[in-house]
Amino acid sequence: MIPLGNLIGWEWSHLGSEFQLSFNPMEGKHLPEHFVTANTDEISRALRLAQHAFEHFSGLAGEKRAQFLEQIAQAIETLGDSLLDRCHRETGLPMARLAGERGRTCNQLRLFAQLARSESWRAPVLDLADPERKPLPKPDIRTCFAALGPVLVFSAGNFPLAFSVAGGDTASALAVGCPVIVKGHEGHLGTSALVADCIRQAGLATGMPEGTFQMLQGPGPQVGRSLVLGEPIRAVGFTGSLHAGRALFDLAASRPNPIPFFAEMGSINPMVVTVSAQRPLGDLARTLVGSVCQNAGQFCTNPGLILVEEGPETDAFLDQMVEQAKKLGPEPMLNERTYRHFQESCSNRVQSGIGLLVSPGAHDLYRVSGVLGVCSAGQFLENPNWQEEVFGPFSLVVRCQDRSELKRVLDTLKGQLTATFWADPAELANYSECIGVMRQRAGRLLFNGVPTGVEVCHAMQHGGPYPASTDARFTSVGSSALRRWIQPQCFQNWPHEALPPALQNQNPLGIWRTINGEMTQAPL
Amino acid sequence: MIPLGNLIGWEWSHLGSEFQLSFNPMEGKHLPEHFVTANTDEISRALRLAQHAFEHFSGLAGEKRAQFLEQIAQAIETLGDSLLDRCHRETGLPMARLAGERGRTCNQLRLFAQLARSESWRAPVLDLADPERKPLPKPDIRTCFAALGPVLVFSAGNFPLAFSVAGGDTASALAVGCPVIVKGHEGHLGTSALVADCIRQAGLATGMPEGTFQMLQGPGPQVGRSLVLGEPIRAVGFTGSLHAGRALFDLAASRPNPIPFFAEMGSINPMVVTVSAQRPLGDLARTLVGSVCQNAGQFCTNPGLILVEEGPETDAFLDQMVEQAKKLGPEPMLNERTYRHFQESCSNRVQSGIGLLVSPGAHDLYRVSGVLGVCSAGQFLENPNWQEEVFGPFSLVVRCQDRSELKRVLDTLKGQLTATFWADPAELANYSECIGVMRQRAGRLLFNGVPTGVEVCHAMQHGGPYPASTDARFTSVGSSALRRWIQPQCFQNWPHEALPPALQNQNPLGIWRTINGEMTQAPL
Repeated sequence: MIPLGNLIGWEWSHLGSEFQLSFNPMEGKHLPEHFVTANTDEISRALRLAQHAFEHFSGLAGEKRAQFLEQIAQAIETLGDSLLDRCHRETGLPMARLAGERGRTCNQLRLFAQLARSESWRAPVLDLADPERKPLPKPDIRTCFAALGPVLVFSAGNFPLAFSVAGGDTASALAVGCPVIVKGHEGHLGTSALVADCIRQAGLATGMPEGTFQMLQGPGPQVGRSLVLGEPIRAVGFTGSLHAGRALFDLAASRPNPIPFFAEMGSINPMVVTVSAQRPLGDLARTLVGSVCQNAGQFCTNPGLILVEEGPETDAFLDQMVEQAKKLGPEPMLNERTYRHFQESCSNRVQSGIGLLVSPGAHDLYRVSGVLGVCSAGQFLENPNWQEEVFGPFSLVVRCQDRSELKRVLDTLKGQLTATFWADPAELANYSECIGVMRQRAGRLLFNGVPTGVEVCHAMQHGGPYPASTDARFTSVGSSALRRWIQPQCFQNWPHEALPPALQNQNPLGIWRTINGEMTQAPL
Repeated sequence: MIPLGNLIGWEWSHLGSEFQLSFNPMEGKHLPEHFVTANTDEISRALRLAQHAFEHFSGLAGEKRAQFLEQIAQAIETLGDSLLDRCHRETGLPMARLAGERGRTCNQLRLFAQLARSESWRAPVLDLADPERKPLPKPDIRTCFAALGPVLVFSAGNFPLAFSVAGGDTASALAVGCPVIVKGHEGHLGTSALVADCIRQAGLATGMPEGTFQMLQGPGPQVGRSLVLGEPIRAVGFTGSLHAGRALFDLAASRPNPIPFFAEMGSINPMVVTVSAQRPLGDLARTLVGSVCQNAGQFCTNPGLILVEEGPETDAFLDQMVEQAKKLGPEPMLNERTYRHFQESCSNRVQSGIGLLVSPGAHDLYRVSGVLGVCSAGQFLENPNWQEEVFGPFSLVVRCQDRSELKRVLDTLKGQLTATFWADPAELANYSECIGVMRQRAGRLLFNGVPTGVEVCHAMQHGGPYPASTDARFTSVGSSALRRWIQPQCFQNWPHEALPPALQNQNPLGIWRTINGEMTQAPL
C-alpha cells in the first residue's frame, strides 16, 4: 500500500541499502515499514530530472499547472481516512486536527491553482518606447515575473500535511512553474510517501513532465545536505528548528553559486496583556491557555511569552490561567526527541530561576501537559537565553511593573513571527511606544486574539526578522508565498511575437499590468 | 571647500588618524586632499544614529521624504561644474559623460521621490473579516509593505554619481524610509564628500532626523567590513567586483542575524550575432564596438562576449569591427589598479590561446584602447575561465560553426545581467532553443541593441543569476530597486484607528489595493 522508496521522475525507486522507520509516539514503538534512504545516484538523478523539467514545466500555460494542483487536492481527498490514520500513528496528532489540516492543505493547493490559472503573479510592467525622446530615444522595456528554477522543500515535523510534501511551499513553487524536490520528514515517512504518490498520480494524469515533482527520503545530514548543494537547485524552503535551519542556510550561502534559503524557524510570539485586558477574566485566560496547550503546543506561532502588566487583578488573572491549564489533559508529543527536548528545556528553565505556575505533570510515554513559568521583568532581562523557544506547551509569564518595564522587555526581544496585544482599544494610544517596538520585531501583529491558527489568505504574513525567519521580506503562508520562487525577466525592444503572453500588447491573459507607471487591465 | 571627514548625524566628523588620497589617472598623481578614515568610534556612532533614526524616518509621510529627495537633486545641480570637475579629476571619465551621469542621478532621485510621494510601493492587501464563516470566523487581516531598517550602501567605482553616494541604492532606500549609511568609494573620495554634503544640506533643510543619511570614508576591509557586521544594519546594496562582492556577501551571511546582501557584480553580457545580422555590415559593427569601448569599457553591461554564427560574411563583419575599434582613441581607466588588472587580463588571455583581432595599444599613463580577442567555440568550451569578466574595453569574439555550437556555448554560460540577440526578426523562431537558454541565464534580454546605457524606468531589471548578482529576484536599477528594502507588515483584527494609512478603510493615500483578491482604488 505505502510506497517505501523515493519518488524520482514519476517512478518509485528503491536503490538504496539504508532504511528509516517511523515511530508511533502513542505506543512508544516503531512502525514496521522500512523506508529506503535515497542513495547518491538517486539524488543526482532527481536533480538532473528537475533541471530538465524546468523549461517545459515553467513554459506551460498556468491553466495546466492549475489542473495539476487541483488533481493533487482531489487525490489527497480520495485517500480518505487511510491517510489520516497513518498520519495519526506517525505523529500522535488527533484525528480531528489532522482532518482540519488536510482541509487546509487542499485549500492551499486550490488557492495556488487559482493563482496559477490567473497568472496575476506575473505582475507585468511595460514602459513603452519613445523614439522622439532627446538626447536618446527611449527603448521599449517590458518585464514580468517568471519561475526561478528547481526548488527544494524541507517539510516540517509538526504539520505533516499543510507544511509537508504537498504543503504551502510545494504548492506555491509548482504554481509558478518551479519543479520541486521534497526532502521527506523523518517523523512521518509513510504520510510523506502516501501524499507523494497522490502528486505522482496527478502529475501523470495531467501530463506533467517527469522531474516536475520528486520526493526523497533519508536523514537530513545525508540526503538534505546533498540536495542543498545540488547545482540545479535555485531556492530552498524550510520549516523547522533554528538549529537545523541555520545550518542549512549557511550551507546554501556557502555554495559556489549561493541561493536564497527561506527558513521559517519559529519564535516565542510575545503577547502583551495590559491591566485593563485582565478584567474580563475567564475568557482571555481560557483562550490564551488553549493557544499555548493545543496539540501539545507544537506550533511555530505558539505564544511562549506573556508579558503581563501588573495591576490589581493580575494575581486573579494568573490564577485563572492556572485553573484553565489544569483542566486540559496531556497530549503526546511528535516523537521521543521532541519530548526529551521539552522536558529538558523545562527543567533548565526552573534550574536557572524561573518559577512555575503550573508544573510538568507525570504522564505515560511521550505525553505532556501545559507548563506555565513566571518571572519578573528584571529576571527576564538578566537571562537572555530565556528567549529561546521551548517547543511544546510552555509559556513564560513575565510580570512587568509598568509600561516602561514592558517596553524594556520588548526592546530586548529578537525577531518574531507574531506579536499580540491584549488591551481595551481605547487605551491603545498610551502604548504607542510599545507597539512601535513590536512593529520592528514581528511580521504579524494581532489584537485581542491568539497567533495560532494561521489563516491562509492573500494578506497573510508568516515570516519575520531573524531568527523567526532568514528573510523578513518573504512569507511562507498565503498567496505571497510564491514571491520566493519568482524572478523578473526583462525584454528590451524584443520582437512582439516572441514576447511571453503576459507582455503582449493585447494582454491575452487579461491581467492587471503597469503600463508607463499606470495600472490597467486594458490591451495596448 | 570639500569636506574631508565623515558625515555622521548631520555633521562632519574628523576623529580618525588615518587618511586616504584620491588619484588622478590622467596625470598619474595623487590629489592633495587628505580624507580622514572613519575610526571605530565613528563607525559605532553612525550605526547607533541610523538605528535611532529608523522609527521616526520610516514613520514620516511619503511627501516629506519626497521633498528630501528632490532637495538632494536640487543641491547636486546647484553644485554645478565644481562637482563634475572634481569627479573628472578623480576618475578620468569625460566631462560630457559625467554631465549625463549627473542628469541620470538627479532623475533617479526624482523618480524615487515620486514613488515615495505616491506610496504605491506599499501595495496593501486586505482580506476582510467574515464572522459567519464556518467552522471558524474569518479574521480581518491587512498587510502592506514597510521599511526594512537601516541600509548599508557600497558605491561603485565606475559610476561615481549614479551608483554612488546619492545613487540608485541610496535613493531607493531613502524613498521607503530606510536610513542609509554609504561606504564612500576609495576611487572618488572628493566626489563622495561633495555629494554627501548635498544630502546633508537637503536633510537639514527638510528637517530629517539625524542618522537618516551618513557617509563614512575608509578602506573596504576596515570600514566596510565593520559596517556589514554592524548590528543595526538590515540590508546591504553593493555594486562592484565579484571578488569583493562575494567576500562581503559571505560576511553578511555569517552574522549572528544574517541580512540580505544584494550585490551586482557585473557580467560578460553575451551577444549572439546570427548570420543574417552580419549583413548590414557597418552599422552593427560600429554600434557594437562603441558599446565595448565607450569610457574605456568600464561598464557592468559591457558586451564582453560576442558569439558570431559563422556565415559567408563573417570575415568581412569582423574586419569592420576591427576597423571601427581602430578608429577610437585611448581613454584613461579609473585608476592604476584597474589599469594593471586590464593589462594582465589581456595578456593572460593571449597566453592561454586567444587570438587578437585588435591588440592593446601602447598609450600614456593609464590610457587603454579597445582590444578584441577571437577564438573558436571549441576553444571557448575548453577554457571555462575565459568566462571571467575583463573589466575594460575588451570583448571576445567566439566563432560558432552553427546553431548547435552556439547553443552549446550558451549552455555553459554562468548568470548574466544581460544577453543580446542580433538577428532578422523573421528568423527568431529558428533560435528558440538558444533563446530558451538565454532566458535562464540573464536578467534582461535585448534584441538588436546594446546592453550599455541602462534605462532607469519601472520595467528595468538590472540583476541576474549568480555571479551577475547575489539574488536574481531583485534589481538595483529602476523603480523595483526599492523592493530590496521593504518587508510586509501584517495586522490581524487590529483596531482601525491604529492602522497605517495604507490599510485604513477610506484609502486615504488613494493607492491601488488588493481587497479580498481584487484590485481596487476604492475606499471600503
